[in-house]
Amino acid sequence: MRRVFVLNGVNLGRLGIREPEIYGHVSHAQLAEHLVATGQGLGLDVEVRQSDVEAEMISWLHQASDESIPVVINAGAWTHSSHAIGDAVRDVPFLLEVHISNIFARESFRHDSVISASAQGVIVGMGLAGYDYALAHIAAMLG
Amino acid sequence: MRRVFVLNGVNLGRLGIREPEIYGHVSHAQLAEHLVATGQGLGLDVEVRQSDVEAEMISWLHQASDESIPVVINAGAWTHSSHAIGDAVRDVPFLLEVHISNIFARESFRHDSVISASAQGVIVGMGLAGYDYALAHIAAMLG
Amino acid sequence: MRRVFVLNGVNLGRLGIREPEIYGHVSHAQLAEHLVATGQGLGLDVEVRQSDVEAEMISWLHQASDESIPVVINAGAWTHSSHAIGDAVRDVPFLLEVHISNIFARESFRHDSVISASAQGVIVGMGLAGYDYALAHIAAMLG
Amino acid sequence: MRRVFVLNGVNLGRLGIREPEIYGHVSHAQLAEHLVATGQGLGLDVEVRQSDVEAEMISWLHQASDESIPVVINAGAWTHSSHAIGDAVRDVPFLLEVHISNIFARESFRHDSVISASAQGVIVGMGLAGYDYALAHIAAMLG
Amino acid sequence: MRRVFVLNGVNLGRLGIREPEIYGHVSHAQLAEHLVATGQGLGLDVEVRQSDVEAEMISWLHQASDESIPVVINAGAWTHSSHAIGDAVRDVPFLLEVHISNIFARESFRHDSVISASAQGVIVGMGLAGYDYALAHIAAMLG
Amino acid sequence: MRRVFVLNGVNLGRLGIREPEIYGHVSHAQLAEHLVATGQGLGLDVEVRQSDVEAEMISWLHQASDESIPVVINAGAWTHSSHAIGDAVRDVPFLLEVHISNIFARESFRHDSVISASAQGVIVGMGLAGYDYALAHIAAMLG
Amino acid sequence: MRRVFVLNGVNLGRLGIREPEIYGHVSHAQLAEHLVATGQGLGLDVEVRQSDVEAEMISWLHQASDESIPVVINAGAWTHSSHAIGDAVRDVPFLLEVHISNIFARESFRHDSVISASAQGVIVGMGLAGYDYALAHIAAMLG
Amino acid sequence: MRRVFVLNGVNLGRLGIREPEIYGHVSHAQLAEHLVATGQGLGLDVEVRQSDVEAEMISWLHQASDESIPVVINAGAWTHSSHAIGDAVRDVPFLLEVHISNIFARESFRHDSVISASAQGVIVGMGLAGYDYALAHIAAMLG
Amino acid sequence: MRRVFVLNGVNLGRLGIREPEIYGHVSHAQLAEHLVATGQGLGLDVEVRQSDVEAEMISWLHQASDESIPVVINAGAWTHSSHAIGDAVRDVPFLLEVHISNIFARESFRHDSVISASAQGVIVGMGLAGYDYALAHIAAMLG
Amino acid sequence: MRRVFVLNGVNLGRLGIREPEIYGHVSHAQLAEHLVATGQGLGLDVEVRQSDVEAEMISWLHQASDESIPVVINAGAWTHSSHAIGDAVRDVPFLLEVHISNIFARESFRHDSVISASAQGVIVGMGLAGYDYALAHIAAMLG
Amino acid sequence: MRRVFVLNGVNLGRLGIREPEIYGHVSHAQLAEHLVATGQGLGLDVEVRQSDVEAEMISWLHQASDESIPVVINAGAWTHSSHAIGDAVRDVPFLLEVHISNIFARESFRHDSVISASAQGVIVGMGLAGYDYALAHIAAMLG
Amino acid sequence: MRRVFVLNGVNLGRLGIREPEIYGHVSHAQLAEHLVATGQGLGLDVEVRQSDVEAEMISWLHQASDESIPVVINAGAWTHSSHAIGDAVRDVPFLLEVHISNIFARESFRHDSVISASAQGVIVGMGLAGYDYALAHIAAMLG
Repeated sequence: MRRVFVLNGVNLGRLGIREPEIYGHVSHAQLAEHLVATGQGLGLDVEVRQSDVEAEMISWLHQASDESIPVVINAGAWTHSSHAIGDAVRDVPFLLEVHISNIFARESFRHDSVISASAQGVIVGMGLAGYDYALAHIAAMLG
Repeated sequence: MRRVFVLNGVNLGRLGIREPEIYGHVSHAQLAEHLVATGQGLGLDVEVRQSDVEAEMISWLHQASDESIPVVINAGAWTHSSHAIGDAVRDVPFLLEVHISNIFARESFRHDSVISASAQGVIVGMGLAGYDYALAHIAAMLG
Repeated sequence: MRRVFVLNGVNLGRLGIREPEIYGHVSHAQLAEHLVATGQGLGLDVEVRQSDVEAEMISWLHQASDESIPVVINAGAWTHSSHAIGDAVRDVPFLLEVHISNIFARESFRHDSVISASAQGVIVGMGLAGYDYALAHIAAMLG
Repeated sequence: MRRVFVLNGVNLGRLGIREPEIYGHVSHAQLAEHLVATGQGLGLDVEVRQSDVEAEMISWLHQASDESIPVVINAGAWTHSSHAIGDAVRDVPFLLEVHISNIFARESFRHDSVISASAQGVIVGMGLAGYDYALAHIAAMLG
Repeated sequence: MRRVFVLNGVNLGRLGIREPEIYGHVSHAQLAEHLVATGQGLGLDVEVRQSDVEAEMISWLHQASDESIPVVINAGAWTHSSHAIGDAVRDVPFLLEVHISNIFARESFRHDSVISASAQGVIVGMGLAGYDYALAHIAAMLG
Repeated sequence: MRRVFVLNGVNLGRLGIREPEIYGHVSHAQLAEHLVATGQGLGLDVEVRQSDVEAEMISWLHQASDESIPVVINAGAWTHSSHAIGDAVRDVPFLLEVHISNIFARESFRHDSVISASAQGVIVGMGLAGYDYALAHIAAMLG
Repeated sequence: MRRVFVLNGVNLGRLGIREPEIYGHVSHAQLAEHLVATGQGLGLDVEVRQSDVEAEMISWLHQASDESIPVVINAGAWTHSSHAIGDAVRDVPFLLEVHISNIFARESFRHDSVISASAQGVIVGMGLAGYDYALAHIAAMLG
Repeated sequence: MRRVFVLNGVNLGRLGIREPEIYGHVSHAQLAEHLVATGQGLGLDVEVRQSDVEAEMISWLHQASDESIPVVINAGAWTHSSHAIGDAVRDVPFLLEVHISNIFARESFRHDSVISASAQGVIVGMGLAGYDYALAHIAAMLG
Repeated sequence: MRRVFVLNGVNLGRLGIREPEIYGHVSHAQLAEHLVATGQGLGLDVEVRQSDVEAEMISWLHQASDESIPVVINAGAWTHSSHAIGDAVRDVPFLLEVHISNIFARESFRHDSVISASAQGVIVGMGLAGYDYALAHIAAMLG
Repeated sequence: MRRVFVLNGVNLGRLGIREPEIYGHVSHAQLAEHLVATGQGLGLDVEVRQSDVEAEMISWLHQASDESIPVVINAGAWTHSSHAIGDAVRDVPFLLEVHISNIFARESFRHDSVISASAQGVIVGMGLAGYDYALAHIAAMLG
Repeated sequence: MRRVFVLNGVNLGRLGIREPEIYGHVSHAQLAEHLVATGQGLGLDVEVRQSDVEAEMISWLHQASDESIPVVINAGAWTHSSHAIGDAVRDVPFLLEVHISNIFARESFRHDSVISASAQGVIVGMGLAGYDYALAHIAAMLG
Repeated sequence: MRRVFVLNGVNLGRLGIREPEIYGHVSHAQLAEHLVATGQGLGLDVEVRQSDVEAEMISWLHQASDESIPVVINAGAWTHSSHAIGDAVRDVPFLLEVHISNIFARESFRHDSVISASAQGVIVGMGLAGYDYALAHIAAMLG
């Protein structure tokens, strides 16, 4: 099965705890379990990783570049300011960006992304289902 | 079956002809046929409409508001400047915004949307498949 | 009796339906009926027109220019972006601009108008009564 | 009769003298006399005050807040820069803002108001008649 | 003879009536007659069209793209805000932009054009003669 | 025959050498010869001058002002920054501005001109033929 | 005992009345009484003054400069626009700035202060206790 | 002898005390005495006034407008923000603006003046001698 | 005793070494010792932590959110750019922001904070004593 | 006698010819003659120079720096854009800037000067008399 | 031999792999080997370090400050956004900034550096040789 | 030997005289002598030229383009404003930009260069040694 990374960035380990009126009540572990299962249905070997350490996120992106692994990324607040991650994603051959909440309906600093211009696609505001559509797209495009 | 509108705006009638290196070779009629079929598979009664007339687009949005019909909208270049459409979408109970190309990798005027803040979700740069994911999301959320 | 145009623009046909917490529960037909009656009391022959078609609004402004008919205009969202209407009002000999809601207490894009600099006067935030004061002003100035 | 304040700010004591091509030839005393009479016709007890002292204007606004007196205010040039007045009007229960000339057709610094967002309504460019419409609106709304 | 479109946009039907101190006293019908005659002298089959309906202008540009017809366009106020027309001109193989008045000596919003970057050339401020030079240029380049 | 100046500014002496993919292969001497001949056909006594010295360009504009000589000017990069030339052209009774390339399709600093607001007309992006149309316009207007 | 000024500016006389959800229910007289007592406990002779008259505030700052009296200042809305007060505080040898509410969580015009750069310290959002900490700091630094 | 006002604004009463490295050691009383004497030598009846009360400054400007008295004004920090004074000076028939220090070499907020556009002339950075030159100019122009 | 976190961010481990003319000569260890003692006097169990690792700071903020521990934070240069920390503080129930130096008197990038809007209070420029006042405020509010 | 330079920049050789409604009818030669005579009365050896060549102006400023000659400069349009002159004036020990017209009442690009921050004083809008006051100031300061 | 740090930041470990058309084919290990050898030729003991962990980079800068070790730094994308590194370099006694590619010919966010103002020198766009020149400069200045 | 130009622009002839605390005490003649000798050591025939005349600088750049001579340029203050030089450098096959002082630590107008995007490399703040490194780089690249 094709290997796929789902990479969640800073503060996303607190899914289900942090601002549940925005992010819902599903925990990150539950999300990961769900996405692995979803991947299996699509013929994808999904690995879900989460880190609050920017360097760890960057090392995963380096690995994805070196091993040509497609990536689904939700970089959290790094999305709006980390040019280091913005540089690291430029080498990833296939990358989709996901945001759980509708960042365009929130504070203006959340309207800009250093990742989007290098992504193949962007999914915003569709809740956790956004990850599902991203995996489906990878299966369809690269499967 | 639940009725759903797919509303394509200005210049999108030229799909398959206009800038195919960006928009691909599928015509609007072929897209419509595909989405109706996709909808049937999802238990949705999909109507695909396209217009270069802003008032017509607005009347469809008014209809969707009055009859509580979910909408998938790709407003083309109106996305970036038509506050009239921006006002009309505020009343639509469930609306997803789709862009075929990655607008964040193009000219800066395409980075802003008068629609996104009122949308439930936004899908960008995933080609015509973006419409499929939007329909799937409507089926899952409202079906 | 002196002929007067009351010209309502895009989305205003949905008065009474759209965002009633902002715009109230009176329909456009009821408003029109009320303004015709108000006009009669002031010795004015009031015609109330509404359109979501920018070209139709522009043709009415051309008619007003050609026939020297005073205009009360509420251009809706066109107020903030339609330079075409902004050009058309420059020829109208007497024009008052009305907004039902207080646009200065809403989103910042609603704070600018392409019409105001060419208007004789502007009335903002006084609800439907704003039309009444505009008609009274026309009666007093031109009657 | 319901008490109403008409509060005119800085430089407005020179009505009839200052730039008559913009502000006309009626003096402030004549305006006050006219508005008191107009108020009587509407069942309103109108007090017209004018000051070039910002603290005096603010004390009148405090009084209006304490005694729930509706206010018609033309703050002159303070409109564009006095956040102190902008704070004071926030407590006034019913306030209408009037400008004699069309501030939107003049210098750009006159296009912004620190008062408008807290006002119930704004009347611009309708000459001294703007005060009349404001009083009529108070009579209709609160009378 | 080679077919050429001269496409005049919003408010230009009022040539000779609207602000004659800027646009002169020649009517649109007279201009059209003159340009057809000029075209004949250059071996060009000139069709002059005017519309206040944006969608009609866009459909003419689509036709020009499909049938490879060179275009001389004066989009009026749409020049400065209609990204929909800005998208439609991208497909036209040969397009010249004309403005009758010197837009650079007028309000700042008239200094920017959504069309110019896609045009082969731009002629500004040379009155109705600008159309003549544009036709001459088409005859010389493509004749 | 009426005397006319064609004044080419900085770096334009390198026509035919500098960036020929933008400016073509005709040298400045050949252009000058061509324009003199064109002028003769139009009844104009054309003098073509070129300088990389700003003060020399300014002295020619002073001469044109003193002797009422119409001017066709292409100021090269001075167009975008030399307020000294911008002041000098204000006294020239009839002046047309020409740019060989489409400056609106190039870097943003080339979109603004200190000359345009004082010019009677502007021709952009029509190659060397732009000079011909400018001379024709002078012949027609002043001939 | 060391003399200290607590200087409260415009609209702060309405403490306890104005927007109590932001400013609380303690009146200015009660605050003054409390701060005098607090000062006594710290060995400070505290004088609490309040004015809506900018010139009065400035005269107090002049006095503080002349007599080297430390100042705790809450200038209210003057904080954001009065360069006159901004100049007057430059001479005060020791000055602390206090804001009762968190001005950084309110409108953006409240985020800038003309006083802060000349202050020794700034305390924001800690309610009336902010004055206490300021007095404690003066006692510790200068006592 | 012709009457002339020298009007010094906020904080200027502290001349000689406040920031003497910028403003010098001459007191306001000494300056006034010097300017009266200078005026006598020029045939001018000079009155020097100073206030920290904006309304007082405005009343003096009203008086100057009513009695056609030329004015030399140094408005201190009001220069940069008081549109009220900016409006009041518009009626003064002859007004010169003076700044003791070189405001263009200080903070950027001091680079803009609401007075300059209405002044006949501006003198900056020439110390107290700037007042002398202003009086000399009035004597020469109006004497 | 109530547990309280004092969290110092990047470069603050070098207190006493780095730019002592700004930050003083007390080391971080000395500061920590002092704050623990201060806390004991206030009935607070103070833990002082410092890190140059953003993820560590974020984990401490997560812990504070989970365990409802009040926080005094000085995030150093992260204050001005780390939206990741800005997001993490949103969940902390009670948080005070401290800056040792007066950031408003330094470079403009230090004038904005991603933390302040989520804080209960902010103390700036009061040296190390700022931490003391923050602890005192926590004791008073929550003790 | 102390040597003084009066240095007039680009386009100022056309004094008396160029835009006389702004600059008056006195020629540069007449101005020079007048200033030499004025200088003699003040004990100054005045040399008046004018050039449209930036390098010549710069060489005069270098000479003034080397020989410690005070300078009165009116750099014309170079004032607003020539950083080369802005650098050259930094070495001149005593420099006064003069503008004949009120540049603050003209186009906004004329409101900024690259010279003012390095000047001892600036005189604006006082016509040719501005040069006289500048010479008088040099005589008083350095004489 | 004098100890020198060469500190390479985020993503620079991928030299030779990442975007080789911009950064070339030499790996980081090869670069390090080369620089150590170059250092030996210059009498410098060069240590080359690379990290994607911001805190590690900061700790090296702290070490350099404490031990007075000169630094050559290429901070990668941190250059443009990490104020934490910007603060850390302020204490380094001698620091040169190097960028391999010409950052001024790339995206605009790469044109600003938080490091440059604190550096002794900056070398941009000279490929890996930039490090050599930096080491040569350190040898010459400090050797 | 390969011919190389070192081109120094406006005000650089005053090296050693002008602001020696910034630029040092070496004169331009001494610098030239040094660079010629340095060139000889590198096998380069170095010509050092300096001019305050922009047209002369441009002619040297034209010569370098025509004869394929590499250029080391320090354009002085022209760096920040002369688009004419910015255009002229585009044709030079190999060009390095040098600044003696650290322009990024000075006024903000010195942070932008019209030359850098067309340069192969940029060296800033390394004093006169910057020229040496530039020559070494040319020798290494082209030698």
